Amino acid sequence: MITRLSLFLLLLALFVNFSLADEGMYPISDIHKLNLKAKGLKIDPNALYNPDGVSLIDAIVMVGGCTGSFVSSDGLILTNHHCAFGAAQAASTKENDYIANGFLAKTRAEEAQAIGYTVRITDSYRDVSREVLSAVTEGMDLAERTKAIDRKMKELAAEAEQQHPGKRAEVSEMFAGRTYVLFIYTYLRDVRMVYVPPRSIGEFGGETDNWIWPRHTGDFSFMRVYVAPDGSPADYSPTNVPYKPRKILKVQPAGVDEGDFVFLLGYPGRTNRHRTSHFMQYEEQYRMPYIANLYDWQIAVMKEMGEKDREVAIKHAARIKSLANVMKRFRGQLKGLDRLNLVEKKKLEEADLQRFIDSDPRRNEVYGTVLTEIGKVYEEITSRAESEIILDFLPSSSTMLSAAYRIYEASIERQKPDLERESAYMDRNFPRTKETMLRALADYHDETDRTFLRELLMQAGSLPMNQRVPAIGALLTTGNVERDIASFIDKAYPASKLNNEQYVLELLSTSKEELETINDPFLKLARALYPTYQALKETRQRREGALSKLSALLVDVKEQYLKTAFIPDANRTLRLTFGYIRGYNPADATYYSPITTLKGVIEKTTGEEPFDTPEKVINLANAKEYGRYKHPKLNDVPVAILYNTDTTGGNSGSPVINANGELVGVNFDRAWEATINDFAWSESYSRSIAVDIRYVLWVTEKVGEADHLLTEMGLK
Amino acid sequence: MITRLSLFLLLLALFVNFSLADEGMYPISDIHKLNLKAKGLKIDPNALYNPDGVSLIDAIVMVGGCTGSFVSSDGLILTNHHCAFGAAQAASTKENDYIANGFLAKTRAEEAQAIGYTVRITDSYRDVSREVLSAVTEGMDLAERTKAIDRKMKELAAEAEQQHPGKRAEVSEMFAGRTYVLFIYTYLRDVRMVYVPPRSIGEFGGETDNWIWPRHTGDFSFMRVYVAPDGSPADYSPTNVPYKPRKILKVQPAGVDEGDFVFLLGYPGRTNRHRTSHFMQYEEQYRMPYIANLYDWQIAVMKEMGEKDREVAIKHAARIKSLANVMKRFRGQLKGLDRLNLVEKKKLEEADLQRFIDSDPRRNEVYGTVLTEIGKVYEEITSRAESEIILDFLPSSSTMLSAAYRIYEASIERQKPDLERESAYMDRNFPRTKETMLRALADYHDETDRTFLRELLMQAGSLPMNQRVPAIGALLTTGNVERDIASFIDKAYPASKLNNEQYVLELLSTSKEELETINDPFLKLARALYPTYQALKETRQRREGALSKLSALLVDVKEQYLKTAFIPDANRTLRLTFGYIRGYNPADATYYSPITTLKGVIEKTTGEEPFDTPEKVINLANAKEYGRYKHPKLNDVPVAILYNTDTTGGNSGSPVINANGELVGVNFDRAWEATINDFAWSESYSRSIAVDIRYVLWVTEKVGEADHLLTEMGLK
Repeated sequence: MITRLSLFLLLLALFVNFSLADEGMYPISDIHKLNLKAKGLKIDPNALYNPDGVSLIDAIVMVGGCTGSFVSSDGLILTNHHCAFGAAQAASTKENDYIANGFLAKTRAEEAQAIGYTVRITDSYRDVSREVLSAVTEGMDLAERTKAIDRKMKELAAEAEQQHPGKRAEVSEMFAGRTYVLFIYTYLRDVRMVYVPPRSIGEFGGETDNWIWPRHTGDFSFMRVYVAPDGSPADYSPTNVPYKPRKILKVQPAGVDEGDFVFLLGYPGRTNRHRTSHFMQYEEQYRMPYIANLYDWQIAVMKEMGEKDREVAIKHAARIKSLANVMKRFRGQLKGLDRLNLVEKKKLEEADLQRFIDSDPRRNEVYGTVLTEIGKVYEEITSRAESEIILDFLPSSSTMLSAAYRIYEASIERQKPDLERESAYMDRNFPRTKETMLRALADYHDETDRTFLRELLMQAGSLPMNQRVPAIGALLTTGNVERDIASFIDKAYPASKLNNEQYVLELLSTSKEELETINDPFLKLARALYPTYQALKETRQRREGALSKLSALLVDVKEQYLKTAFIPDANRTLRLTFGYIRGYNPADATYYSPITTLKGVIEKTTGEEPFDTPEKVINLANAKEYGRYKHPKLNDVPVAILYNTDTTGGNSGSPVINANGELVGVNFDRAWEATINDFAWSESYSRSIAVDIRYVLWVTEKVGEADHLLTEMGLK
Repeated sequence: MITRLSLFLLLLALFVNFSLADEGMYPISDIHKLNLKAKGLKIDPNALYNPDGVSLIDAIVMVGGCTGSFVSSDGLILTNHHCAFGAAQAASTKENDYIANGFLAKTRAEEAQAIGYTVRITDSYRDVSREVLSAVTEGMDLAERTKAIDRKMKELAAEAEQQHPGKRAEVSEMFAGRTYVLFIYTYLRDVRMVYVPPRSIGEFGGETDNWIWPRHTGDFSFMRVYVAPDGSPADYSPTNVPYKPRKILKVQPAGVDEGDFVFLLGYPGRTNRHRTSHFMQYEEQYRMPYIANLYDWQIAVMKEMGEKDREVAIKHAARIKSLANVMKRFRGQLKGLDRLNLVEKKKLEEADLQRFIDSDPRRNEVYGTVLTEIGKVYEEITSRAESEIILDFLPSSSTMLSAAYRIYEASIERQKPDLERESAYMDRNFPRTKETMLRALADYHDETDRTFLRELLMQAGSLPMNQRVPAIGALLTTGNVERDIASFIDKAYPASKLNNEQYVLELLSTSKEELETINDPFLKLARALYPTYQALKETRQRREGALSKLSALLVDVKEQYLKTAFIPDANRTLRLTFGYIRGYNPADATYYSPITTLKGVIEKTTGEEPFDTPEKVINLANAKEYGRYKHPKLNDVPVAILYNTDTTGGNSGSPVINANGELVGVNFDRAWEATINDFAWSESYSRSIAVDIRYVLWVTEKVGEADHLLTEMGLK
């Protein structure tokens, strides 16, 4: 027993989400619990976070889905190149290709609008667990329970927004069924591009180097946020003035060195560390392999289509990039799950926890069946995995079908009171939903769409009878699945106008009754599918209700067992993570050190995208024009740094901050082996990647010749 | 001037073929000049090489084109898996697949004949420079000079063979036009397979890992050589007895560790370090890129053909492997030439050497124009590079055309006195020439052959008029190159019987006059091409004559300048190289340590070829059944080792020997960056790879369960 327990504790120390120095995405409310001084912090922790005054976290924003930080008192924001990519793309014309050539505003007047971008600042937060859970009553139906919690969260947000005019409020679930926090945010709407380096620097290495260390990407950009002359949030206007942040981060041009303490602040998206072995097993065996294979195939199809036609290649570029990114991450995670043997380890932990529960009759009474009940939910999910996953990807694989489904669903949801709608159809979100749809239509390519839809319909049509959904069954008129699907496709595409943006916009404000009179094959298919998806939604709400209840109990008993409090999984709320600049051994006989240099940029340069370093960089490197940015030991300009902090998607653009609270890097990726972070943190493999501040400044000064920005940051 | 000179010396220290501790493939005659004790050798250097007695070099053999070493007094030889591959393939049947399953003889009687294999032992050597060069007279025509040297070398060998009945003699050129050595060899003809591990161990990683470190390949095999009962060389016979070597290498099961001194003995093939910048430029700009691209394309064609038909895939497998190997090496060399900027560095050295020559009028008189004259030869070569390279690859790309050319050439060459023939047609070599042709015919595939020939004829037909050869011009009847070539191909293949082995054998002993009456399109083309190739041969003999003369002068003056003697380029004669077990930095922020382990085998294992580790190995690794082969610090069985000795092709199978003269590994590859060895040695990049003796013994004992071999080596 002792042996198994020590093994368990050892495994905990290695893989689980608490009790370890370098692991954890701490909510700002938990920062005070950390002894950061002992870890290496040299400033007063209150300077980092102080709910009653101004602190470092006031310099952190969310911008374009990423994190950014204020680096001047005139609202200058430092974030990633890939976070400004959309803005640069939108502002580009045939004459001015800001992606290829980069963008530099020599004066404030030249700063170009970042269309569709907002900057979000966290104003305050408040625990509202009691209020949210007051919506739940004993013996409530499980699906109803989920809906009640959801409604209450929306109500609390709406109330808060009434109390704070001009602000936006959101309730975030920290621990399912247990802890909820209300955040008040300021949204600023006039965001502009200031300096975006050329793609050959900012995206150097492209897809090939994505998730890869050693890395040589200058993934940074400068943006600026503007407000009305009275300081209030405002839409873009030439009369707007730079926003004055409450706090800015001091930029430290000396950078960091191997072994140095660093911390990051940012908005990590989603982790699943509190989930049980059942969830991981489902992900490992069903969902992730399905998606990775599907995306692999879709990427291959799109590449083939693009080979025949350059215009099609351009249309597919962004989608290929995004699918490839997910696919590579999933492959990394699958490798990590296997390599760390995570499911087995989780099972072992759970067996020990069960023994702890069983060792006390009163504990057993409350918690005795929690794990087996969770297991039952996943048994149900697993038993229907194939058909449910296919249903999930059926509409999203086809722009036509997904437009049809959105249109039909909108006609129903938009009739409901705002707070009861699916989030995409709430007044606050509907404009963005429309925008996303129109963007997809702009990249529509008929042959690709047909190929994808045919494949998904074939999969759905080939399911065993008892899993096949009625709407698909109805397409199979002759019983020869392949022929029936082909015949539907051949007739449907020429007969539909849903690839017309104007028409789609019209239909998005058409009533359900009118829609039902329109003779469009995709609208008809969407209507036929609707009941199936409604039933699936209800099923999932029921499962979520069950899991929410059970998870709350699980966290309770785990806290009793391990005698410690936990950090909630990442959920796009502001978090702190800390660690050290550190290399790693990704494989036998291989060691990667934690600082790359300009030498490596030249080594990788082939002259062809994505390794087409600008001539200017090559010449500066050859002439050893390092300026003050030379690393004393490496005798070269550092380009990227590696550290063992705990990050996930959404941490893009997070400032890497040194022990003195100064900015020394901009986080932009993880090492491939660190994709496992979403499930577990590992000292061996969890490594995140930033562009080194020395490379940011070297490129800005020597390549961009944007000395005015260095002056603005107080570095000249 | 001082600065340039110091730079030159620094570059020398880094890149050139002398004055450096760890560089050099020393002829055995030079071993005594080395202070090996100071480098780390712990035994008497006389034990290593002693012309008057028995020494370690007597344990070294050449086997199947590789190096091997005697490890038991019963003629047991340890070499590479890939060196025994051909034997295992030839001995395999449908029922007994020795490639897939490996081969183990449990008794001597079960040892299987290695068909076509010989074992060569170096008996003695003698400097014959004076004799060879006596054939050269002042003012001799340059082509005639080349022929005279060639004839003299053959004569000396023939004489020596008369003096040493049963032996084989060869004269090797050490320094062109300057130094020649006569070697006397014993050839043993009864070679047998003893233990060949399965391909999934011996070729683990396959093409993917070829030229790659970190490596996890168990590339070893045991063979045995037999002689007649009276001890004389004999063909295979059941009555033969094991050969009793004069010396064997002691196998050291404790292996080596990082930093340890090691040396290798073996038969490295060919290096080009004494060549000038002109040669390297030609290789970098013309020959290597042409071949790498051609092979890339040929591999792609063969793979595509194989995808349609499994039988075709099998036919093409060996050729794909061999082309891929060369192609990957060339790509590595091209990268290395670029990365080390070798041509520029050579030019800088040559400019300094020229200044040294010019600084003394008498020196200038003798050597003043050597470098410019060499440059002129390469100017000529370069000006005709395209057409000459195409001509080189024209016959060899097509089995049909190459058979036709061989047949026609044989009919002419075989008429000449033996010593005046092209080497392939000398009596001693002709049987092997035939064998090679028949092997190519056995793998003949019509569509592939047509595709290759069409491409090469298209290239030859598309050359500018002044470079186009008459035989090709004659095919272009309409002037539309593509149509004319297609028409030739379409008519020629059905009309020829040269893919029939029996017919080819007949034609190989048919007279020129008779051949000229045969109406075969390929024979006709070969005849039409013959004068062109004869002229090219003459041209090359002239160039070689010039270069041979000039190179001798160049080596003279370089010796005066650098005040040191040189090591000749590798030429398949016995050499020693020494160095240390050492990791390296192949790229920015990347360090590879020099010992891989079983853990890495498991990490790479995917279950699919070439990463399909046998179940038995996986189970033994999981159970940590390391036996006595565990590395104390790595806590695992070492699989491969890396060291900075100087090797090239032909060093395959070379024993890696520790400071005490004991065998600790079997050399089988270089790291990719070390392909540059053929042009220059580099402390940063020159690394060779061996299978660690601990893995050899672990596999033999635990996987092969061949305890009798351990007993035979005195290890049980």
